[in-house]
Amino acid sequence: MTYEPAPADRFTFGLWTVGNRGRDPFGDFVRPTLDPVEAVHKLGELGAWGVNFHDNDLVPIDATAADRDRIVRDFRRALEASGLTVPMATTNLFFEPVFKDGAFTSHDPGIRAYAVQKTMRAMDLGVELGARTYVFWGGREGAEVDAAKDPVDAIKRFREAIDFLCDYAIDQQYALRFALEAKPNEPRGDIYFPTTAAYLGFIPTLAHPEMVGVNPEVAHEHMIGLNFCHVVAQALEAGKLFHIDLNDQKPGRFDQDLRFASESIKPLFFLVKLLEEGGYDGPLHFDAHAYRTETRDGVWDFARGCMRSYLILKDKVRRFREDREIQALVAECRGAQGESFAPYRREAAAALKQQSFDRQALAARPLPYERLDQLLIDLLLGAR
Amino acid sequence: MTYEPAPADRFTFGLWTVGNRGRDPFGDFVRPTLDPVEAVHKLGELGAWGVNFHDNDLVPIDATAADRDRIVRDFRRALEASGLTVPMATTNLFFEPVFKDGAFTSHDPGIRAYAVQKTMRAMDLGVELGARTYVFWGGREGAEVDAAKDPVDAIKRFREAIDFLCDYAIDQQYALRFALEAKPNEPRGDIYFPTTAAYLGFIPTLAHPEMVGVNPEVAHEHMIGLNFCHVVAQALEAGKLFHIDLNDQKPGRFDQDLRFASESIKPLFFLVKLLEEGGYDGPLHFDAHAYRTETRDGVWDFARGCMRSYLILKDKVRRFREDREIQALVAECRGAQGESFAPYRREAAAALKQQSFDRQALAARPLPYERLDQLLIDLLLGAR
Amino acid sequence: MTYEPAPADRFTFGLWTVGNRGRDPFGDFVRPTLDPVEAVHKLGELGAWGVNFHDNDLVPIDATAADRDRIVRDFRRALEASGLTVPMATTNLFFEPVFKDGAFTSHDPGIRAYAVQKTMRAMDLGVELGARTYVFWGGREGAEVDAAKDPVDAIKRFREAIDFLCDYAIDQQYALRFALEAKPNEPRGDIYFPTTAAYLGFIPTLAHPEMVGVNPEVAHEHMIGLNFCHVVAQALEAGKLFHIDLNDQKPGRFDQDLRFASESIKPLFFLVKLLEEGGYDGPLHFDAHAYRTETRDGVWDFARGCMRSYLILKDKVRRFREDREIQALVAECRGAQGESFAPYRREAAAALKQQSFDRQALAARPLPYERLDQLLIDLLLGAR
Amino acid sequence: MTYEPAPADRFTFGLWTVGNRGRDPFGDFVRPTLDPVEAVHKLGELGAWGVNFHDNDLVPIDATAADRDRIVRDFRRALEASGLTVPMATTNLFFEPVFKDGAFTSHDPGIRAYAVQKTMRAMDLGVELGARTYVFWGGREGAEVDAAKDPVDAIKRFREAIDFLCDYAIDQQYALRFALEAKPNEPRGDIYFPTTAAYLGFIPTLAHPEMVGVNPEVAHEHMIGLNFCHVVAQALEAGKLFHIDLNDQKPGRFDQDLRFASESIKPLFFLVKLLEEGGYDGPLHFDAHAYRTETRDGVWDFARGCMRSYLILKDKVRRFREDREIQALVAECRGAQGESFAPYRREAAAALKQQSFDRQALAARPLPYERLDQLLIDLLLGAR
Repeated sequence: MTYEPAPADRFTFGLWTVGNRGRDPFGDFVRPTLDPVEAVHKLGELGAWGVNFHDNDLVPIDATAADRDRIVRDFRRALEASGLTVPMATTNLFFEPVFKDGAFTSHDPGIRAYAVQKTMRAMDLGVELGARTYVFWGGREGAEVDAAKDPVDAIKRFREAIDFLCDYAIDQQYALRFALEAKPNEPRGDIYFPTTAAYLGFIPTLAHPEMVGVNPEVAHEHMIGLNFCHVVAQALEAGKLFHIDLNDQKPGRFDQDLRFASESIKPLFFLVKLLEEGGYDGPLHFDAHAYRTETRDGVWDFARGCMRSYLILKDKVRRFREDREIQALVAECRGAQGESFAPYRREAAAALKQQSFDRQALAARPLPYERLDQLLIDLLLGAR
Repeated sequence: MTYEPAPADRFTFGLWTVGNRGRDPFGDFVRPTLDPVEAVHKLGELGAWGVNFHDNDLVPIDATAADRDRIVRDFRRALEASGLTVPMATTNLFFEPVFKDGAFTSHDPGIRAYAVQKTMRAMDLGVELGARTYVFWGGREGAEVDAAKDPVDAIKRFREAIDFLCDYAIDQQYALRFALEAKPNEPRGDIYFPTTAAYLGFIPTLAHPEMVGVNPEVAHEHMIGLNFCHVVAQALEAGKLFHIDLNDQKPGRFDQDLRFASESIKPLFFLVKLLEEGGYDGPLHFDAHAYRTETRDGVWDFARGCMRSYLILKDKVRRFREDREIQALVAECRGAQGESFAPYRREAAAALKQQSFDRQALAARPLPYERLDQLLIDLLLGAR
Repeated sequence: MTYEPAPADRFTFGLWTVGNRGRDPFGDFVRPTLDPVEAVHKLGELGAWGVNFHDNDLVPIDATAADRDRIVRDFRRALEASGLTVPMATTNLFFEPVFKDGAFTSHDPGIRAYAVQKTMRAMDLGVELGARTYVFWGGREGAEVDAAKDPVDAIKRFREAIDFLCDYAIDQQYALRFALEAKPNEPRGDIYFPTTAAYLGFIPTLAHPEMVGVNPEVAHEHMIGLNFCHVVAQALEAGKLFHIDLNDQKPGRFDQDLRFASESIKPLFFLVKLLEEGGYDGPLHFDAHAYRTETRDGVWDFARGCMRSYLILKDKVRRFREDREIQALVAECRGAQGESFAPYRREAAAALKQQSFDRQALAARPLPYERLDQLLIDLLLGAR
Repeated sequence: MTYEPAPADRFTFGLWTVGNRGRDPFGDFVRPTLDPVEAVHKLGELGAWGVNFHDNDLVPIDATAADRDRIVRDFRRALEASGLTVPMATTNLFFEPVFKDGAFTSHDPGIRAYAVQKTMRAMDLGVELGARTYVFWGGREGAEVDAAKDPVDAIKRFREAIDFLCDYAIDQQYALRFALEAKPNEPRGDIYFPTTAAYLGFIPTLAHPEMVGVNPEVAHEHMIGLNFCHVVAQALEAGKLFHIDLNDQKPGRFDQDLRFASESIKPLFFLVKLLEEGGYDGPLHFDAHAYRTETRDGVWDFARGCMRSYLILKDKVRRFREDREIQALVAECRGAQGESFAPYRREAAAALKQQSFDRQALAARPLPYERLDQLLIDLLLGAR
């Protein structure tokens, strides 16, 4: 196997990912600015399918209309030349000081209105360049202290903004779906809607729930030690997996955005298995960046590595599925599938209530998970 | 202030909490069995309003029908004598080896049916003693490895059971509401529906969503470092806060079930504020236990402390609300509340898109959170 | 009590703390540069005793000799005018790209030499302004991947640098003690010497162990959930608590550097108790910064709050010591103190080996920790 | 490669590991008692080299002298028959209620004396069966609240016990080395000496530091997210790696004691690399247990898996060392090794202080960690 990526693999990168300049809370930039046009050409060469952006990744916040037009024209040409698509776009509602205490959930109605305006314009830009998914990451929607901010109000304000923007998209006849991206903390002490699941609970309360899904990110759920595959499974089962952010992260620490599968080999095998076998056919977006120690060249090594590891794990998923010994053990663990107690019928329920069960016998059936899991480890390590 | 609890405070304890015998993974029991009747009398003396139980906290799993009747009769008498109520009941689906790989989500249809049967019977018992809320904590519904368990199937199986049991409650004309309780891990490596929010996302997919809410527990969300007040706020805003489990926990470690507010003073101030001012009027249930170093007497010190700390924090909430300097700062942080951009109207949206905003001016308004938060700390510490 | 700080309280701040401009990984500066001279005057007004700095907090890295002299002169005048001291100084070995892969532990002998040079010069500067403690925080001494960095080499290289700099201080007849400051991660994926304890293990391997101690920081140990009071106790017991960094932090997340005691009320009560009663008489240094939402004025609110909360907790420590009911419970928990088995003598050991112990009786003595801990909570909350 | 374990691999298991019966805080035993004699025979068949035990794993706490003799005789015969050794022994100072508030650090001088007695007797037992390493895990040496326990006293009491027991070993002419094992929490809220590094700081303060080293355990350091390879490197560099406990653990949660390398593939590659290349030649002890879902047979699958994964990783270490492309990248990352600034000489230091460095040039050297790390991932996944 060569594990060479191709557009059919649907790999995408954000401009901000390969363009990351390596600044962190304790240190300055280490890499020069990367021109979006150059990024597009290089990603095309590497085999990516698409490129995503925040409005200000492409168009500086204080650009004139003429600047904007020129930038968009050049970018579109680069897309055409490289064959890249723009499957997703999003808004930067976190960098500028105006958003220091939130955008859609700010106390200030002026800031909330400005955030909505900025998003409408960014949606226009995204749609103009072909985006079908629009991501919302509320990085500043949170608090360090709860003394002056009501978390119930925050939910209502966030809903107001999303409902409004759904209506805007409908009104503009944009073929856009919204994907909400959660994170528990950083840059805020606590961010509202800290998990993908929080958004799954929120979406049914919206005016247009069918337009809105989630964009789970590996690092954001791994930060607090959640099982990412389980998180994504719930989104998928609910029909709400509209997008996904692939990267890696060590639990219990700052947001690392590491190269995909550079740390969490086994958990990400299960993720790839779920995505490949569970019917997800959207973009496979890498929201990660190179180590701060890398030069510009290292950024492309990083990008290659993300795609390569995905393809290796995808191949492992196939082998897992085709491995007879493994599948026999899976079947043994699963056991015979008998009749269900459901659906509810009064007589059957009454009968069930009287049924005699042998607890000891039910407990005795072997569940050879250790053996199966070791075969998986063997498979992952190339030792079978 | 005496901070003496009274039934009007709606404090409840589980039989398993004051009855906890102090066994842990590395050590044996340190306290003798506590008779449920004695527990009821003692809780009544201490000022509690109610007592809750798992089926087998009250009736041993292998009790005969005659045993059951005698136990229930004695327990009812104790309730009447002490004036205690039974606001909530639940099922033990985790202790017996039969549930070692799950109950409602077990691979084995026999185990799933047995778990449903056990729950129907436990619901009968709970209702017989007056319970209006029925809690589901799926402690064994999870996995250490995902190789043979499909997390999507797990969700479907859990839904099947909850839907069935809703129908059972309806069919029996039980005035019961279900409250789902999440936990991220322990005793399983990962538990399905790891957060309260996961259940908020799950409930709208049920056949009887209106009957089903959540039972958030402080320790279960603090384990992974979530802001519990934010978690509860989302449940409350969704109309789904049906019950609450109060205790305490240091983040990032094993489930401690500590005395309420013995660790997380400031976070639990915000919780009490939300409960008291946000319209929650259900039971205030302490799902905690005494340190393993305590004797039987220490258990009652523990129970007193839970209630006392709640009442102290409740009084702090009142003071916070009535403190003019604090409220002036809150108002300053919140700022003037102008008109909203919502609801969506085409012309207004078009106008908004053209509106001119002064980012610097919007960013410049002071948000004196440090000052406000210090006043809160002063208030909490009795220094104002 | 007014809780007004005075120089006798030995409170110090870093120039970088009140000068923090609020940049984070997702957002830009929000506050203007603070002139060191202004910082000194303001800290003096607020009641601080001292001010600390990294070399480049005071003297820009590319300053000419003339610039340096002018800056130092102005700063010294401000110190004299305000009465502030400079108890501690340190080196910035993390901001510049040259240190992106470490300073003393860099692969590159040129970078290691440069880091040593920068530190010698910074020691000169610190001593010139009166510093008696020199802090080493190896923020970049770490790795994201261990494939090309040998952690054993890293220890040896770090030792080489510290030994060299001890010799330099001795040679210059500087009355300096070194204080090593640990952090588990951020900005690096993993930092070498991740805990204060790691330095306690390292110091005895140095050439001049008597000159070298530790500078534990609340946030850095709370990040991974350690009990900070226990950490400091080990340093104190070993005679190695040379300095301390006070702030606050929620566990399991990015480095927050919050206002002292704004989160961890109970743990920091125990810290203050240990410092006040355990014989520590060094500076009480706040290594924290204001929320990013604050304006310049908020920075001083933040600084006031740090000192005020320390003084409130110090007063609680006194009350705890003078509270008869509490002290009676403490005595009850401690029990009677009999003879020790130590020191080892052959005959006594042989007798001990044959002695008969009644395990049950020994286990039965009550340890009323719940009661005691609740009294402490009452005391902390001003409810006794 | 067959990855078949043999005694030369020095793999050992504790009686408590394969004998683990699957009880946890929420559930009962699921597996029957395993006879130590049977354990020894089975471990011998599987290719293990040794077996370790707590005193009461082998001899029940209330055994008569005659029972003890019979048990030891049978066990010794099993050892001889199977060829197994007993490289390590330890004391159970955590299961019995008498130790609920600590053993060596208990307030009660009677309990401290009893703990020392129990340890002397257990040392006799261990030595009688051939142990050369004696492990101390102070599982109950800690606190939930610090109000009545002084952490400084705890250190002094622990030192008193260790010093005494060193003298006992010397006096008995036992060829024993002590290995101290740290854990941050569980079963106590906080355990004293929470990290291996805490013991590295403690050992130099002992009366016989040369006799005492550490026994780091993967799970105990991973629980709080430390880099285990870095932890072990410090112990090894200090000459203090006397024993090691191999298992696995997801960070930020309860103690899992998972099958070796079943979760942390990459971190444990680096551990094996360090052990194999860093000169460690002691036992490779698996302190882990089978999932609670396993039957007795599954326990042996678990044991096989531990050893197999170690051997697979050991083979990966060899390949890493022999891979030319990888080694070329390692060399590129390390760069040219020039002269060191050390040792200190006055003239050279003066010259260094005046030397001119080109920060930009030093920062510009490429460090291709992304490329190297991806090759490692390829190697681990069997994709090169």
